[in-house]
Amino acid sequence: MALIVQKFGGSSVSDAEKIKHVAARILEAQAQGNDICVVVSAMGDTTDDLVDLADSVSSKRENREMDMLLTAGERISMSLLAMAIQEQGGKAKSFTGYQAGISTDSDHGSARISKIEPVRVREALNAGEIAIVAGFQGFSFETGDVTTLGRGGSDTTAVALASALNADVCEIYSDVDGVYTADPRIVPRARKLAQIDIESMLELSSSGAKILYIRAVEFARRHGVPLRVRSTFSVDSGTLVYTTKPGEEMEEPVVSGVTTDDTQSKITIIGLPDIPGKAAEVFQIVAEAGVNIDMIVQNSSSQDTQLSDISITLPHSERPKIVEALRAKQAEVGFEGVSYDDEIGKLSIVGAGMKTSSGVSAKLFGALARAGINIEMISTSEIRVSVITRASQLKDATRAVHTAFELDAADTAIIYAGTGR
Amino acid sequence: MALIVQKFGGSSVSDAEKIKHVAARILEAQAQGNDICVVVSAMGDTTDDLVDLADSVSSKRENREMDMLLTAGERISMSLLAMAIQEQGGKAKSFTGYQAGISTDSDHGSARISKIEPVRVREALNAGEIAIVAGFQGFSFETGDVTTLGRGGSDTTAVALASALNADVCEIYSDVDGVYTADPRIVPRARKLAQIDIESMLELSSSGAKILYIRAVEFARRHGVPLRVRSTFSVDSGTLVYTTKPGEEMEEPVVSGVTTDDTQSKITIIGLPDIPGKAAEVFQIVAEAGVNIDMIVQNSSSQDTQLSDISITLPHSERPKIVEALRAKQAEVGFEGVSYDDEIGKLSIVGAGMKTSSGVSAKLFGALARAGINIEMISTSEIRVSVITRASQLKDATRAVHTAFELDAADTAIIYAGTGR
Repeated sequence: MALIVQKFGGSSVSDAEKIKHVAARILEAQAQGNDICVVVSAMGDTTDDLVDLADSVSSKRENREMDMLLTAGERISMSLLAMAIQEQGGKAKSFTGYQAGISTDSDHGSARISKIEPVRVREALNAGEIAIVAGFQGFSFETGDVTTLGRGGSDTTAVALASALNADVCEIYSDVDGVYTADPRIVPRARKLAQIDIESMLELSSSGAKILYIRAVEFARRHGVPLRVRSTFSVDSGTLVYTTKPGEEMEEPVVSGVTTDDTQSKITIIGLPDIPGKAAEVFQIVAEAGVNIDMIVQNSSSQDTQLSDISITLPHSERPKIVEALRAKQAEVGFEGVSYDDEIGKLSIVGAGMKTSSGVSAKLFGALARAGINIEMISTSEIRVSVITRASQLKDATRAVHTAFELDAADTAIIYAGTGR
Repeated sequence: MALIVQKFGGSSVSDAEKIKHVAARILEAQAQGNDICVVVSAMGDTTDDLVDLADSVSSKRENREMDMLLTAGERISMSLLAMAIQEQGGKAKSFTGYQAGISTDSDHGSARISKIEPVRVREALNAGEIAIVAGFQGFSFETGDVTTLGRGGSDTTAVALASALNADVCEIYSDVDGVYTADPRIVPRARKLAQIDIESMLELSSSGAKILYIRAVEFARRHGVPLRVRSTFSVDSGTLVYTTKPGEEMEEPVVSGVTTDDTQSKITIIGLPDIPGKAAEVFQIVAEAGVNIDMIVQNSSSQDTQLSDISITLPHSERPKIVEALRAKQAEVGFEGVSYDDEIGKLSIVGAGMKTSSGVSAKLFGALARAGINIEMISTSEIRVSVITRASQLKDATRAVHTAFELDAADTAIIYAGTGR
């Protein structure tokens, strides 16, 4: 008998019919002899609707009250799911983050889990009940207040709970039936991977694949939680995301997949004096604005070797704030100007096998060159190479690279339609 | 400086505009130098919508999960209200029943408050913040689960909190601007009472006036909490519901008001053997069905003096269940039959002065007789006389009685449009 944590995203429980379907699916897994703990997100657009309501009474989004507001969402979905399971003859009990023993710090809106003591969840499982836990939410014992975990919070709840319960597997359900070698909407011949190592999954998540939130993948890797990405609406076994212990490493395909991200902007700080400490001043400004940047490239200015340019990439939504912050300090730091570009696209290839295989970058750049695509920035890790291109060329680039690395399937993949939160 | 508990019902916070209006109103009361603790219901139809959702996934309404579901409603309204107050420059913090220290038993769906320890509410008030508490909900420390207080629960939360905080007054806001001598929709010349004693208010509430829930009034009487019934949408001072200490009793008007109730049915058990214990058997059947009955009248059967008839009144909604339960036991108990009548109306006159004034019943029956209205059942308390008439005659009866007791105003009252929950 296995203990399985199943996480269902908002699109899997967006109306009464889908909730009943999920209830039946959970009961099937239990009938196969498993203990089932379920983590559930708010129904469909509930969170967006609540945010709209908040915006209609207030121009600020005060974090403590926002968390109080948003946590209403999972209360609704989880109690309905418990009732649906009971209606179908099962036993189920729903638990808030607090009741499930999910302790966090008190950083409202993006709290971090500090400890999980799922006493009541274990009691429910021991009593043969399906334990349903609210995703996305926790409780700060320091302040006595409800907290939320931020974007991808429900994935994180599921993985953390699977770790605390020592579950055999954490299944992440959405409307996508697994991890693909590329986004099938861009590359019709993308293949679903039967399995992928967690390091590669981490790089895929951080390079724009929306299928699993990077924070949850990081948690799974650190705690050795096996994940399985499955579709709520098919019986396909999905993709196993496995963790390897040292010495257990398998032969990996060189490149597991190609991922793209068209949600970034590039900002270039032009004509920064090429003296020690100036780059640090620039990044201090960015850090004070509280923004995570992705890629950084510094190179000498074409006009003057005493000056350099620094380009950074970051999410579109953060771009205006950073440009404004930089321009406000332009005279003080002494650079010549700031430019930005919202029309960039990022393409990444990811694979654990890249560590031991040479020539991967050469093959990538060759494929892009043959397709007539200019590379504007490059960044690499041990198992990932990312390049910045024009956003308008991103789809062509992805198809060319997918073919060059021999990832194309014989058949056209089924197009999937977006992911749950 | 006074400490005021203000309760706002669902119709007072049914959309963003109304929430902003309520926020402004709360800040005005604070600006006048008062400490303000607010109790708030779920927005408008939220509770009904959530019940509909539950019905769409389940044919049962499992109580623990229903409470989990319904308590989402106040989380939404209270956090939005806190944000609206902050937006208008005030300081506010919202608290769940648990956070406000509202302990209940674990009777889901109709929990009773066992203790209130509003530590965090006091801290907030001491910090100059407006403390916003979720109405209708509590927490069972025995089970660790969220509970709800049942119908009128938000009124009860407000009164109980006012008692625990030793508040100077508990203001109940709705879309009605006070307690009237009769329902102005029925009696256009009904007068708003500037004040009423709490015993009379209790009788009004139990006789069908929807303005305050009887359970909250009972709590206020037992704990000596002064209430004020006010409108969210006018500056009128409303009606003070005062509690008197022994020896403090004032001269009361003989009759404070006339109230009506057309939501009851009459059930008659026909031909019950007139021997000891038979009536007890009948009421045992009713008790086992878990129904509160209102009036009881027993009289000898017209056909046979060895048999008697018993008539009871109870809510429409309970009538089918009780009739079925009685018929199932008819042979066992040995009565001749069960009949029922859904077309009855109840009229009550209420007033603390009736205790010391004779002739009130005579005046009531005379007025009804002159209006050609037949009386079918009568029940009395020290400060109330209720009669059952045909439902179709109830409005005429009310107007006749209102006039006979000289309650008519010189002017026609403003018609009000229903009450909050």
